[in-house]
Amino acid sequence: MIQPLNLVLFSGTDDKLQAAAVLTAGAAAIGKPVHVFLQYWALDAFRTDRIAADHGLAPEAGPEGRSRVDELASAGQMPWSETLRMAKDLGEVDIQACSLSMDLLHLDQSDLDPLVDGVEGVTAFYDNAGDGQVVFI
Amino acid sequence: MIQPLNLVLFSGTDDKLQAAAVLTAGAAAIGKPVHVFLQYWALDAFRTDRIAADHGLAPEAGPEGRSRVDELASAGQMPWSETLRMAKDLGEVDIQACSLSMDLLHLDQSDLDPLVDGVEGVTAFYDNAGDGQVVFI
Amino acid sequence: MIQPLNLVLFSGTDDKLQAAAVLTAGAAAIGKPVHVFLQYWALDAFRTDRIAADHGLAPEAGPEGRSRVDELASAGQMPWSETLRMAKDLGEVDIQACSLSMDLLHLDQSDLDPLVDGVEGVTAFYDNAGDGQVVFI
Repeated sequence: MIQPLNLVLFSGTDDKLQAAAVLTAGAAAIGKPVHVFLQYWALDAFRTDRIAADHGLAPEAGPEGRSRVDELASAGQMPWSETLRMAKDLGEVDIQACSLSMDLLHLDQSDLDPLVDGVEGVTAFYDNAGDGQVVFI
Repeated sequence: MIQPLNLVLFSGTDDKLQAAAVLTAGAAAIGKPVHVFLQYWALDAFRTDRIAADHGLAPEAGPEGRSRVDELASAGQMPWSETLRMAKDLGEVDIQACSLSMDLLHLDQSDLDPLVDGVEGVTAFYDNAGDGQVVFI
Repeated sequence: MIQPLNLVLFSGTDDKLQAAAVLTAGAAAIGKPVHVFLQYWALDAFRTDRIAADHGLAPEAGPEGRSRVDELASAGQMPWSETLRMAKDLGEVDIQACSLSMDLLHLDQSDLDPLVDGVEGVTAFYDNAGDGQVVFI
C-alpha cells in the first residue's frame, strides 16, 4: 500500500507556498496521495479574499530574490494556488484546514477558497496520515 | 511496534512553538511516543528565565496575526509550555536539548525549564529516532 | 535496506544551514545515505561567489543570537559548508540543485560550489528518496 505524503503548512509566504505546491504536484504526478493540513499563516493565505494577493517572501529573499520571483511571475509562472489546482486534477490531493487555526483566525469554511476540502482537528490529521511521512513547511 | 515521532525544534517564535506543542499533544493522545530535540532559538525559549516571556511571532504574522494571537491568549488559551506539560502527562514525551546548541548559547541543564529531560548529541538523537518520522520545525 | 534521509533545504540563513549540515553529518556518521535537495534561498547560498559570505540568521536570533554565533565562529567553529564537505568524506551524501530554483535564480551548475553534485527535478528527487524520510528545512 502506498503511504500518503502529509504536509503541514504553517508559513504563509509565497515562496514557501510555492515550494509546498511543487512538492505536492510532484507527489501527485507519481501517484502518491497527498494530505495537506493548513495552520496559522498558511491557512490565512487560503482565504478567498486573499489567495490571489501578494503574501510576501521569506525575509532572507532580500530585494534580489524579490525581483527574481517577480520576473518569473511576469514571464507567466503559475501561482502556487494554480499549481495546487493542477495537482488536484492530476492525483489524490486532500487539503484540510486545522480547526484550532480556524478559531484563531475567526474563519469558517465559507471564507476559504474551494481548494480547501474541509476542516479537521490534529487527531484526524494523524489518523489520515497513517504511517506516511509528515513534512512541516 | 509503534515508531516514535521525532520533532527537531529550531524556531523560537511562539506561533511555531505552539504548532509544535499541538502536534506533540496530538501524537501523545493517540499513544505515539514523541522525542523532541531542541536546537538554537527553540532551545533558548526553554530557559527558565524566558519560557514565560513573549518570544514574538513569525515575520509574516503581521499586526493582524499578532492581535489574533493576543486575543486567544486573553481568552485563556494555554501557552505552548503548558500544552507540552499536559502532553507529558498524557503520553510518552521526551524532550532533549542538543549539546551543540547548549554550547552555542552557553547553557547548562540547570538553566532550562524542568520540561527538558536531558542533553544529547545528534548521534543519540538518531539512535532514539529509530525508523520514526523526523520533522523539522 | 537502509532508507536514505532526504533533506529539502529551502532556507538560506547560516543558522538553518548549520542545523542542516549537522543533521547531515550525524546521519552520514551512522551510515545513513543522505540526499540533499536545494531550493530557493538555500540554493542561492551554494553559489561559488557567496558560499563563504555571511547569509544572516533567522529573524528571531536577535542581537544576542548574532553575537553567540559570531563568538563560536571566532573560536574556530567550522562553517556549514565545511561540515558538509566533511560529511561527504564520512559517508554517502548527495547534493542536488532543484531545476526550477536554478531557473528562478538564473544559475547553471558552473555557478555553484563543487559540493553540489548535480541538478534534478522534483520527480527525480522523489524517485531517489524512495521510502526514506523527507525533512524540509
